[in-house]
Amino acid sequence: MTTARFDDSAVRDGYAEIARRGPFVYGLTNYIAANLSANVLLAAGAGPAIGAASDWTTTFPAGANAVWINTAALMSSDEDSLRRVARTAHEAGTPWVLDPVAVGAGAAEYDAFVRGLLEFRPAVIRGNASELIALAGGAATGKGVETTVDSSDAVSTAGELAARTGSVVAVSGPVDYISDGSRVVEVPGGDVRLTRVTGAGCALGALTAAAVFATGDALQGAVVSHAAYAEAAERAGARTTGTGSFGVALVDELSLLAESA
Amino acid sequence: MTTARFDDSAVRDGYAEIARRGPFVYGLTNYIAANLSANVLLAAGAGPAIGAASDWTTTFPAGANAVWINTAALMSSDEDSLRRVARTAHEAGTPWVLDPVAVGAGAAEYDAFVRGLLEFRPAVIRGNASELIALAGGAATGKGVETTVDSSDAVSTAGELAARTGSVVAVSGPVDYISDGSRVVEVPGGDVRLTRVTGAGCALGALTAAAVFATGDALQGAVVSHAAYAEAAERAGARTTGTGSFGVALVDELSLLAESA
Amino acid sequence: MTTARFDDSAVRDGYAEIARRGPFVYGLTNYIAANLSANVLLAAGAGPAIGAASDWTTTFPAGANAVWINTAALMSSDEDSLRRVARTAHEAGTPWVLDPVAVGAGAAEYDAFVRGLLEFRPAVIRGNASELIALAGGAATGKGVETTVDSSDAVSTAGELAARTGSVVAVSGPVDYISDGSRVVEVPGGDVRLTRVTGAGCALGALTAAAVFATGDALQGAVVSHAAYAEAAERAGARTTGTGSFGVALVDELSLLAESA
Repeated sequence: MTTARFDDSAVRDGYAEIARRGPFVYGLTNYIAANLSANVLLAAGAGPAIGAASDWTTTFPAGANAVWINTAALMSSDEDSLRRVARTAHEAGTPWVLDPVAVGAGAAEYDAFVRGLLEFRPAVIRGNASELIALAGGAATGKGVETTVDSSDAVSTAGELAARTGSVVAVSGPVDYISDGSRVVEVPGGDVRLTRVTGAGCALGALTAAAVFATGDALQGAVVSHAAYAEAAERAGARTTGTGSFGVALVDELSLLAESA
Repeated sequence: MTTARFDDSAVRDGYAEIARRGPFVYGLTNYIAANLSANVLLAAGAGPAIGAASDWTTTFPAGANAVWINTAALMSSDEDSLRRVARTAHEAGTPWVLDPVAVGAGAAEYDAFVRGLLEFRPAVIRGNASELIALAGGAATGKGVETTVDSSDAVSTAGELAARTGSVVAVSGPVDYISDGSRVVEVPGGDVRLTRVTGAGCALGALTAAAVFATGDALQGAVVSHAAYAEAAERAGARTTGTGSFGVALVDELSLLAESA
Repeated sequence: MTTARFDDSAVRDGYAEIARRGPFVYGLTNYIAANLSANVLLAAGAGPAIGAASDWTTTFPAGANAVWINTAALMSSDEDSLRRVARTAHEAGTPWVLDPVAVGAGAAEYDAFVRGLLEFRPAVIRGNASELIALAGGAATGKGVETTVDSSDAVSTAGELAARTGSVVAVSGPVDYISDGSRVVEVPGGDVRLTRVTGAGCALGALTAAAVFATGDALQGAVVSHAAYAEAAERAGARTTGTGSFGVALVDELSLLAESA
């Protein structure tokens, strides 16, 4: 296992590449996390569009540089829309990130729908330990959108899921683990308050899509987004106390990292 | 009438119990307020999930520790979804909070739908004075989602509505009034800027659901959430000037109260 | 071409009139921008309601003082709802603002739908340069919701579109240009970070609706909202560094301008 940090020059360069190229990143996500996801992408220098308005679902996944789908988007878009975006991205060769939020929390139909999206071969699957264990077919351990399992318990699951699907799998937690099925990269750091800002995980999925495009590589893209997030969270945590200010500062630091990278 | 404040040990203990137990709180709410509602719950130590995605509406109200329904959720979910969540919570014995936002503002079909949810016996009904007067069958006095009536004018209405429905009724305003039909508790404090942060009232409904679970009592739960909100708003108001910073500081203070309680 | 700034007494008075009259402003908008739009209206002293819940779409546009429609509202409301709100506002004589976000970004069906709303004669059309050029029938130059064209390139298009539709047309950019077809007013100032806070443009559409009501004039209303935004953005920019804090400070400054105006 190797360790990656934002200070590694390849990571820093990959993050800077987002702002240099300014990719158009299109997403379907839930309305709780949509605002933060867009602001995280804008902070990093990407240009987001979100939502299943009219024919956006057929045109934007093909025209965008990268796509992300947070499956809780089902709260305001229908199953056909999510599948259309995944299929269109897949067929157009647009890399896309799957964020299977709340899989394994007890909603069997939802879980089955999420698994069905693997058919369209996401470049990256990103989630917490409970979600990835459930997605891989293990026991359901989620509590709503929260995990009850530590990320270190999902490392082997992540590797197996990656090997089986061909997707890079990224597990968020106190230490993040990212695997392509053969290698595992760990990303330390971050701040526990990331779990107390709604949509912080979802927004990391959006940022990962931008980073996959910017680096041209699913594994390196996931490493870049997770390491930038960890660094920004540490800086935000060092200068705030409550969880509201921390969320604002997280976006600040992502934008300042983009300016200085 | 008795008066409750956050400094009362029973109130402080009730609020701390949210973080100690970390309840899973599920809600249907409108997409303007969803983000703040989730962040308020996370600040207090609860774990939220929001939205009518797939079969979440049948599984989560039964599996959650508490539920809230903000009826403006109709802007992205259909009537069946809201009724299903209310019915499922009622039948499963999960306490739920009804937030009849904008009732009495002139939309008769909407108002009728909201009244129909009383069939499923919410533990608490929370709103501003115009909303509660309208819900009780009085004259419509709302202006969009805002009240044109002071909370003190709704005290008797709250008591009557509570006696008739069996729900605890909480009126938000310069002073909050909470009644179970026989007793009335007043909660002073807060900050006028609570009316200038969108979704602040809606998020209080979510926090009330968590507090009802934590205290095991609808009246005490509503007192705890309203007193914690009033205290956090006063602290936030003392260190901010504009309304944007106030909203961020409100979440900060709720999280700091949870850590120190 | 004349130049307007917040320090002009007519602009300052127009902005203050929003808080003095406290208009009820109803909108359909997308769920990424809905929260910020409501908070901007509340900061200025208006009372917002948002969304196509139940019969709100038939009652609120007639009962409100002003209306805005951001066409990305299609991500959670159907075409009939948007048209109903536009038609109802038009027939009731309620001034309304059209924000054709992402027109010209490559989604032809969406673009056609947006153009169809011109039938209901918005008081003001507000967008970035790419959007307004596309709405006027020019080449599509958008990249998602972002422009690839400077506002100065859209001045003549704005004037022609205004003359043809009878709407005031406002182009956002480094300098804003506002035309009623014969006159053009330029509004300098602002901050480049306005383009890095999601929904900042959408929220300006909401504020414009409030200002059109407060001033009783479409051109002057658009000038007031754009000049207040430019001033608030400059003040916010002077005291923040990252994009997260800037967005919070923008709302702060709009509320402080309302208190001091």
